[in-house]
Amino acid sequence: MTEKHPLSGYKKDNNGVLWIWSYVGQARVKMGYKVKSLLHYEQSSYQQISIVDTKRYGKMLVLDGTPQISTGEGFIYNEMISHVPIITHSNPKKVAMIGGGDCGPAREAMKYDGIKQIDVVEIDPKVTEICRTWLTPASCYEGETRLNMIHRDGIDWIQEQKGVYDVLIIDRPDPVGPGKKLFQPDFYQYVYNSLKDDGVVVFQSGSPYYNTSTLQGTIKNLKELFPIVRTYLVTIPLFPCGIWSFTIASKKIDPLQADLTKLQHKHTQYINPEIFRASFVLPKYIKEIVDGNDS
Amino acid sequence: MTEKHPLSGYKKDNNGVLWIWSYVGQARVKMGYKVKSLLHYEQSSYQQISIVDTKRYGKMLVLDGTPQISTGEGFIYNEMISHVPIITHSNPKKVAMIGGGDCGPAREAMKYDGIKQIDVVEIDPKVTEICRTWLTPASCYEGETRLNMIHRDGIDWIQEQKGVYDVLIIDRPDPVGPGKKLFQPDFYQYVYNSLKDDGVVVFQSGSPYYNTSTLQGTIKNLKELFPIVRTYLVTIPLFPCGIWSFTIASKKIDPLQADLTKLQHKHTQYINPEIFRASFVLPKYIKEIVDGNDS
Repeated sequence: MTEKHPLSGYKKDNNGVLWIWSYVGQARVKMGYKVKSLLHYEQSSYQQISIVDTKRYGKMLVLDGTPQISTGEGFIYNEMISHVPIITHSNPKKVAMIGGGDCGPAREAMKYDGIKQIDVVEIDPKVTEICRTWLTPASCYEGETRLNMIHRDGIDWIQEQKGVYDVLIIDRPDPVGPGKKLFQPDFYQYVYNSLKDDGVVVFQSGSPYYNTSTLQGTIKNLKELFPIVRTYLVTIPLFPCGIWSFTIASKKIDPLQADLTKLQHKHTQYINPEIFRASFVLPKYIKEIVDGNDS
Repeated sequence: MTEKHPLSGYKKDNNGVLWIWSYVGQARVKMGYKVKSLLHYEQSSYQQISIVDTKRYGKMLVLDGTPQISTGEGFIYNEMISHVPIITHSNPKKVAMIGGGDCGPAREAMKYDGIKQIDVVEIDPKVTEICRTWLTPASCYEGETRLNMIHRDGIDWIQEQKGVYDVLIIDRPDPVGPGKKLFQPDFYQYVYNSLKDDGVVVFQSGSPYYNTSTLQGTIKNLKELFPIVRTYLVTIPLFPCGIWSFTIASKKIDPLQADLTKLQHKHTQYINPEIFRASFVLPKYIKEIVDGNDS
């Protein structure tokens, strides 16, 4: 008998083994990860936060029952959401991120000496605290004075920013619950306003296999504001079906014209200049979705 | 209570809904697909074969409880395992496939007028019959005289072929059970022998995230025989974690030097010349596995 676990998302199987689950496609497809051990859990003011250890993915951050990122493959998501907009801009000084309280993208941004300020806007301070305790050694941040944690609602915060950022990284959750606000037309306008005249922004824009409307909605909203909008792809082994999209919007600089020399010798595990370019090459079925010809 | 279903692989959940499952990473990760309806099942001399209808993947071929391919995204696997070696060769006349009794790769090969003979070696005639009934309209094959179905064990068959094929497609299952033979050094030698002097062969070589030893073993064995060995990647939404590898081995022609003009206007849903090139660009963590530096 499967036994319901008091923590949402977790279930014990017939052998008493604990599993954590990801759902896609309106829960018609689900992916289960066998838990080696449940290392930590607590209820914050915003959500249930847990850290589990798993065999193939290593330690995993789980929010309200949904796996977010793992130490085994989190480098893929973190590198691809951060290096692409940073390299596109070529010389950013002020960078901000909404979401991503685990600071994964922020740690990638730290690899660029030219970046002088990294603001991470994460509503839940507990996420940051727990990730630092369980996922990332505090030594990562030693002597790092550029990183500012801003524990506020991203929507409120961004409305106060006017033309100040070179690069923005919108590491938003799926468009359900409170996350929905980060997919509304108003939000894209606030993002546009917060960027400098040559600013670049990237959005997590959903799986092109499961969330075609998320991807198409993101592109449509961005094209009304930005002259340059491009979608690129990455395969995230943690997510069911793997294939995932990011969409970059830029006021002046086209990522396809970016100077990739700064990426050549960066200490990374996924991206290099060839991967940067290849990630913008879309399979025909995804190109049709992006071009708005989805049937 | 989850209820065991008499067909292997299937399980009913607490609400009586039927699910079919894929397992990876020694069953520490699993992916479940909600079944709309179980359309057909039977026991052949070799295996349990079933066809299910699912919401997001459409109709699915399931062998011994493991989903193999779906009508919703099977074009990705079929196109990438066939067009890449065919285009690499540039002018194949005789093509053979081991496995792939659903004839998906064969249907892609049919798109090339220059190909005069397509031999599909599938041990189980029931797979072919059931796929034609449930997955592919028979009209696909009307007037098609180039396709020969050979219902034999692939290992026995290939040992009789000497220097006759331009292109071989090894659409093998995972290296478990009888499928193991298709991963032994002997098999690679038989494959080499069956090819002409400018022959090209492609192997399904496992997930670079889960099956690094499968991928590394394939490359190692091929490098002992072929001067040109290259791995390319594809994301298959049906497979847990998505990321999958194919490895091409060639006696004369390098896929990176292939003339891609014939691919330009092919009727495909995934591949085009840009995707052909991009699929050979490996993320750094996969390049390390391919280069044998996996830790």
